[in-house]
Amino acid sequence: MINKVPQAAVPRLSLYYRALLESRGKDYVSSDELSKLTNFTAAQVRRDLTYFGQFGTPGKGYEIEGLKKAILGILGTDKNWDVALVGAGNLGTALLSYKGFKQQGFKILSAFDNDLRKIGKTLEGITVQDISELEKTVSEQGIQIAIVATSTEGAQEVIDTLIRAGVKAILNFTPIRAQTPEEAIVLNIDLSIELERLAYFLTKAKA
Amino acid sequence: MINKVPQAAVPRLSLYYRALLESRGKDYVSSDELSKLTNFTAAQVRRDLTYFGQFGTPGKGYEIEGLKKAILGILGTDKNWDVALVGAGNLGTALLSYKGFKQQGFKILSAFDNDLRKIGKTLEGITVQDISELEKTVSEQGIQIAIVATSTEGAQEVIDTLIRAGVKAILNFTPIRAQTPEEAIVLNIDLSIELERLAYFLTKAKA
Repeated sequence: MINKVPQAAVPRLSLYYRALLESRGKDYVSSDELSKLTNFTAAQVRRDLTYFGQFGTPGKGYEIEGLKKAILGILGTDKNWDVALVGAGNLGTALLSYKGFKQQGFKILSAFDNDLRKIGKTLEGITVQDISELEKTVSEQGIQIAIVATSTEGAQEVIDTLIRAGVKAILNFTPIRAQTPEEAIVLNIDLSIELERLAYFLTKAKA
Repeated sequence: MINKVPQAAVPRLSLYYRALLESRGKDYVSSDELSKLTNFTAAQVRRDLTYFGQFGTPGKGYEIEGLKKAILGILGTDKNWDVALVGAGNLGTALLSYKGFKQQGFKILSAFDNDLRKIGKTLEGITVQDISELEKTVSEQGIQIAIVATSTEGAQEVIDTLIRAGVKAILNFTPIRAQTPEEAIVLNIDLSIELERLAYFLTKAKA
């Protein structure tokens, strides 16, 4: 039954989990409290958490530890994931030192670049490898998740190579809309969209 | 009437706009085509675009140029926005050279850091200023949008200073959950959530 969580609810589950982490020292949390912590309406919280009905008690709220474990199980973050990073420029370097990844169980295991000035450098304990080693290394390490933080040129080739190496899920920071086979997923990160949400807020506030 | 677009639809409007840009050389686009380009269902597309009903013609689809202009008007991206960047480390430097911002009308006008090795450096045509000049400069430039890409320590102080300087909308890349007055908005960027969506995809694919 828990498997029926709709795709659109997945990022919200991540946020509920973070809110539950903030509810330390308590056994139960109400949908109103989760609503305040996440800025979703209490109705939205309750609807999303019907999938976890067994952790809700009328009048008491949700049993925090059980709900946390159930969400981790659904998200697949009850285990650790190895991640390959392609592109060790400013963005790649920033992502290598991004603490949130490790906290949520994502470990960047290897990093690649095609720039001779970057290859061989050690960043955050990871030695940047030549991109020509990408397919072999990722395949040997059995990595399933990759982050692409290269320049636009060559990004599709990098994604093709990752797929050949067995990667099934890619976080793409380049502006290309990648072609991928159906069994793989590419999430495109477009930070302008977040700025557009701010512009909308400012425009509406004036209207 | 157009002003009633619900907040949750705003990021989708950004994606429809990008899809419309890809539909060059045509006058009309159908909800099915927009569905394919954005990966939302055609029903979702049609519901979101009821707010722009005057651009839809049964059997023909949506009139592209009119719809593009209307979405830009709603999002407030029919004009340019000046942006202040605080934190000129790896992430800040990556954001300074992020092409998507300029394409969508966001121009980083000034950058700040508290690291003497960074202050005075010119990156992408912007000279990094001492953070002690933050309030004065941002206030004089009348900037309303800021990006915070500092370390966790001091991030709340930076946000307080930005608000005092008149900033109303902040994109926060630090892990802090900032305290802000009600008239301002802070969007927290948590890149782990995107990796969790990938973990969910991989876990579900195996189930």
